Amino acid sequence: MNGLKEKVLTLDTMNQCVRRVEYAVRGPIMLRALELEQELRQGVKKPFTEVIRANIGDAQAMGQKPITFMRQVLALCVDPELLSSSHFPEDAKRRAERILQACGGHSLGAYSVSSGIQLIREDVARYIERRDGGIPSNPNNIFLSTGASDAIVTVLKLLVAGEGRARTGVLIPIPQYPLYSATLAELNAVQVNYYLDEEHAWALDVGELRRALHQARDRCRPRALCVINPGNPTGQVQTRECIEAVIRLAFEERLFLLADEVYQDNVYAEGSQFHSFKKVLTEMGPPYAAQQELASFHSASKGYMGECGFRGGYVEVVNMDAAVQQQMLKLMSVRLCPPVPGQALLHAVVSPPGPSDPSFAQFQAEKQAVLAELAAKAKLTEQIFSKTPGIRCNPVQGAMYSFPRMHLPPRAVQRAQELGLAPDMFFCMRLLEETGICVVPGSGFGQREGTYHFRMTILPPMEKLRPLLEKLSQFHAKFTLEYS
Amino acid sequence: MNGLKEKVLTLDTMNQCVRRVEYAVRGPIMLRALELEQELRQGVKKPFTEVIRANIGDAQAMGQKPITFMRQVLALCVDPELLSSSHFPEDAKRRAERILQACGGHSLGAYSVSSGIQLIREDVARYIERRDGGIPSNPNNIFLSTGASDAIVTVLKLLVAGEGRARTGVLIPIPQYPLYSATLAELNAVQVNYYLDEEHAWALDVGELRRALHQARDRCRPRALCVINPGNPTGQVQTRECIEAVIRLAFEERLFLLADEVYQDNVYAEGSQFHSFKKVLTEMGPPYAAQQELASFHSASKGYMGECGFRGGYVEVVNMDAAVQQQMLKLMSVRLCPPVPGQALLHAVVSPPGPSDPSFAQFQAEKQAVLAELAAKAKLTEQIFSKTPGIRCNPVQGAMYSFPRMHLPPRAVQRAQELGLAPDMFFCMRLLEETGICVVPGSGFGQREGTYHFRMTILPPMEKLRPLLEKLSQFHAKFTLEYS
Repeated sequence: MNGLKEKVLTLDTMNQCVRRVEYAVRGPIMLRALELEQELRQGVKKPFTEVIRANIGDAQAMGQKPITFMRQVLALCVDPELLSSSHFPEDAKRRAERILQACGGHSLGAYSVSSGIQLIREDVARYIERRDGGIPSNPNNIFLSTGASDAIVTVLKLLVAGEGRARTGVLIPIPQYPLYSATLAELNAVQVNYYLDEEHAWALDVGELRRALHQARDRCRPRALCVINPGNPTGQVQTRECIEAVIRLAFEERLFLLADEVYQDNVYAEGSQFHSFKKVLTEMGPPYAAQQELASFHSASKGYMGECGFRGGYVEVVNMDAAVQQQMLKLMSVRLCPPVPGQALLHAVVSPPGPSDPSFAQFQAEKQAVLAELAAKAKLTEQIFSKTPGIRCNPVQGAMYSFPRMHLPPRAVQRAQELGLAPDMFFCMRLLEETGICVVPGSGFGQREGTYHFRMTILPPMEKLRPLLEKLSQFHAKFTLEYS
Repeated sequence: MNGLKEKVLTLDTMNQCVRRVEYAVRGPIMLRALELEQELRQGVKKPFTEVIRANIGDAQAMGQKPITFMRQVLALCVDPELLSSSHFPEDAKRRAERILQACGGHSLGAYSVSSGIQLIREDVARYIERRDGGIPSNPNNIFLSTGASDAIVTVLKLLVAGEGRARTGVLIPIPQYPLYSATLAELNAVQVNYYLDEEHAWALDVGELRRALHQARDRCRPRALCVINPGNPTGQVQTRECIEAVIRLAFEERLFLLADEVYQDNVYAEGSQFHSFKKVLTEMGPPYAAQQELASFHSASKGYMGECGFRGGYVEVVNMDAAVQQQMLKLMSVRLCPPVPGQALLHAVVSPPGPSDPSFAQFQAEKQAVLAELAAKAKLTEQIFSKTPGIRCNPVQGAMYSFPRMHLPPRAVQRAQELGLAPDMFFCMRLLEETGICVVPGSGFGQREGTYHFRMTILPPMEKLRPLLEKLSQFHAKFTLEYS
């Protein structure tokens, strides 16, 4: 009885759905990058002096400064003794007092209600109304969350049901942000791929959506459709016509719509404009406006604020069955509440200073500076990659990433296969080892068979981005030569 | 095609596991309490002037002040411009600088690695070593989380596998904190109840554990055992002998141990002492020390800090299979990272100021004041309930709750059944309507058939707690009379 026993929890006995989960953004490339950073600190000689983490949309890690007003409000909420300090502008103080009034015990340290602080949900609703040209938003349909990821998982969780061929199928774009594939694997739902059209700047083609849907009906019951707009990793911004077509299809085919709109403030390309699914849906009138079910997600992690670490987000649900909405609230209540500092931060996002407020000028200047720099970086990325032989890059219309396609010589593909690696993983790993540049292979997001991509953020500071893009292009040329 | 369609997502088509989830701490009583508060604000006449939320362990909502040092460190991290302010003591500044150094871009706004900031995990490990008299703790076995709840759900998720009679069974105490029953329902695992011994101050009886285990083998494969110590909602503090017996049983019966130790700082009764499962396990030597699998959970939400809103917590895993541990990290990485402000707060919890630091005296005074007041409230609760006819209350040795048993007259039970309510829910709902006192019925935590309890926190401020306990006792007498 006291001999060496096998563990209770092993790879074989554990949850096999969890085992099947993959998450490339923080996969082997990221782990190796961490090791390399440690080696550099220990003085190990490398062909580079720093690892540049262009693998994840983490703006502040890349040196972007927080928006002053937001941090002032939050510091005042955290330590209300500061309310008597002259260091802070009056509007930041009023804002902090307003938030604290709405907190249990007037403290960020109390739990909020599970859907988030009422005041903040009301202000989110007003923000959505302004964004959507006055279309009403009801705070009772808004649920704050631990980043947008948390809300996306919650809505997907509600949707998953059935066994065998009646299992819930969820349509996701390919390439996609791997939260979707990971969550569907964990929930044992069926992932149904529809391919974005790389030849047309990653546009969503409704014909392809219909193909994917109809083919999927043989093996599952498709019940939800995920759209990421602006696109991650693909950077496209959908046209209004496209969104209308998607809504019509969702309605006809009885699909619950999930609109991942966390990059709604990140639109750079001339002629591109963000249209929310909620607004388009409402303006399409009957039968869509009053019937099509939709969940729209937003976050404090992206945009111009980039406050990823605070994990503040929300979902607005539209036309959701009232009883299901109660179930969603119940499910959220088991985790008690989203982090209250993230809620407070979200408040500053949805209620920025107005023109008569003392913080207005600085706030606007900081916001515009961040967005203008992102736009310039998007442009520069496209320019450099478009001049690189063997690399083809669509315009980065929005979001924070380029997703260039690269030619890999057959011998490189063969070598990768010998090593048991996806060819683009092989490329990215070599790139990291030789240049310190950390990007994510396209296989982590999905891509058409036989094509190879990588995702790279546009976030490194301007003075680093240009040499980085050039280094990457040169490495690709060298790599191609090596395997030709 | 354009007629009124049934919704895609309804109670019938949704995830039925989610539908079965129950979470009493924020159930109908809480919702009614919110309504009553709103009615009071609108000037509706009630037999009380305020609702007292004694339903949830939310210390700061009940007026407990945050620990000054913690909030100072956090404010400095949020707004590093304050580092040059004379408002803050030097040790708080040094601490904030240390945390920011360990953050991406030196900002709380960057994502951390998914297991949490390395520096903070190292300091958690040192904290555990101090707590456990020098027994080593490895930062690689520590995972920070969004409150302890998040970590508990993650570990349970890993454990759930199998179908039919091979489904994972998880032993949980009855009464339990309903996170466990809710999570098991959501994951479609089998809940296996073992009853705590109310006649012996809610002690855990290993014979009863064995009974539950053996009976469960007919319907599932029991693979994990959850223990809550100090107990929630029951307030018992386990003896070292009891913990040893539990560990022996877990080892013999091949059960993964989950030790919910979030109330480890909340021990009040004379002669009671907190023993961590990790320490006892290690001191038991072979074969337990090197083989028994354990996950121990802790949080910044309870103790003397009560920072629930920040959602800071951690799990330490012991003897976990290395490959499974990698899977756990992967699973966490899909959600990117726990909220960084909560991580920073946890740092202040695990590394309090030392005797030579300027903040030491104030920190100690504040901490002791909170713990002394909680101890006094625990005592008072027990005293008043023990004098109340028809109510029987075990000593509140630890944690933050009393879980008194009450006699309900048969006619009250009958009336409740006519209304389709659990008898204790009927009592608690009437109590709320007539006195404004919000407590949770025992049925939400589980109790032996035919017994009735409620959970009440000991958190209301002293000047409110005594009248509240007396009012509750009087209401019980009145209620009993009414239905006799």
